[in-house]
Amino acid sequence: MNIIVYPTRNYIEERQLKDKVAVVIDVLRATSTIITALYNGCKEVIPADEIEEAVRLAKNYEKNTFILGGERNAEKIEGFHLSNSPCEYSRDQVENKTVLITTTNGTRAIKRAAYAKEVLLASFINITAICDYLEALGQDIAIVCAGTEGRFSADDVLAAGALIYGLHKKNIPIELDDLGLTAKFMYEHSMDDLHGVLSQTTHYSLLKDMGLQRDLDDCLRLDTAPIVPIYSDGIVRAWYNIVDMR
Amino acid sequence: MNIIVYPTRNYIEERQLKDKVAVVIDVLRATSTIITALYNGCKEVIPADEIEEAVRLAKNYEKNTFILGGERNAEKIEGFHLSNSPCEYSRDQVENKTVLITTTNGTRAIKRAAYAKEVLLASFINITAICDYLEALGQDIAIVCAGTEGRFSADDVLAAGALIYGLHKKNIPIELDDLGLTAKFMYEHSMDDLHGVLSQTTHYSLLKDMGLQRDLDDCLRLDTAPIVPIYSDGIVRAWYNIVDMR
Repeated sequence: MNIIVYPTRNYIEERQLKDKVAVVIDVLRATSTIITALYNGCKEVIPADEIEEAVRLAKNYEKNTFILGGERNAEKIEGFHLSNSPCEYSRDQVENKTVLITTTNGTRAIKRAAYAKEVLLASFINITAICDYLEALGQDIAIVCAGTEGRFSADDVLAAGALIYGLHKKNIPIELDDLGLTAKFMYEHSMDDLHGVLSQTTHYSLLKDMGLQRDLDDCLRLDTAPIVPIYSDGIVRAWYNIVDMR
Repeated sequence: MNIIVYPTRNYIEERQLKDKVAVVIDVLRATSTIITALYNGCKEVIPADEIEEAVRLAKNYEKNTFILGGERNAEKIEGFHLSNSPCEYSRDQVENKTVLITTTNGTRAIKRAAYAKEVLLASFINITAICDYLEALGQDIAIVCAGTEGRFSADDVLAAGALIYGLHKKNIPIELDDLGLTAKFMYEHSMDDLHGVLSQTTHYSLLKDMGLQRDLDDCLRLDTAPIVPIYSDGIVRAWYNIVDMR
């Protein structure tokens, strides 16, 4: 199993991605939030690049059947139902609804990863479910770290390390590029203290300073939402929902 | 002291660099080779992007006053005097000569860093000299990892970590971006076994497979060439030479 890791979505090359399964990671907070929404029973999640696009898409839905969510500058968008905090996407808010979401980094990374033959969404909260799914697939993988404002983000790379570590523990033979080796090394030396290692990083510090400690706690917990979200034709669905629909 | 780290030269943004001191790192092998040549008494080093450019520049020099060096695909260029192995740039080869050098990643990174107000060349072999110089300057820093073929290269990031670790040990207050924090973390957890940590990485493996173990040994030794090379107006000179010239 060959694994390449992109430090941000800007690094993605279409020709490298097209014969691989892409795993998009935006720990703080887009993929953590989307995974939480799906785990709590929302029907589907539609990522939008821009606020206007999300608002326009919402017009296709009956009142009370959809949620508009997302952030700009880590804050809730005016007129939207929810921000980008996983804890807001509780079952009573999202069950059976469509979530339309736009964020600065994560949703754009998901759409950019669409060159791949399959696109999964990962974060610490579903890391083992993703490992199990990838083991069953047995395909080459491209891990797409969303990054923050086009720059390397340590939280995403650490989750990439957790994913690689999980595959390694299954004794799956894997070949890694240098960022993959770095990510695995980082995770192996910090898995017992993720908050400590990330406490000085840019995005973590920003959210902490905004009083969003609960988001940080929720996003750095392992396996609290053990599902496999798949992005296809513009929509993210949980894998078991997709199986039900087939 | 604010420090940003670029994973490859492709990440450089002119506006970010222009008020900073840039430190270019290409451990395997361009900056290691150039530093060695200067340490062994060569007059100056002129980095060229292309083979043709190096050959054309050589026409300005009398026979026996210059060395043409460099690599493509990690091998010596046909008709050139030397390859890109530090050990070839011995005192008897280079003393008082001009070295014209072209490599795949390193020389291009050096030229791209020229947006900065001062450009230094670093590798493990001069890491403490660079730390001392940066301490005396007291300016904001941009560390430019050359990378390999436009991708993240762990050897360069590890040397960036060694540099940051050295500054940290001097109790200089530093602010780091996420890649800087990652680099420091990596180095702190691997400084006693650089070869072990890098043994599976792309560039290290390639050079090892080519039988260039001596290059790997030479490039990963600390402080064997304690000089500060400065790139200015297209030429790299050792700082003490520049001082002599003033």
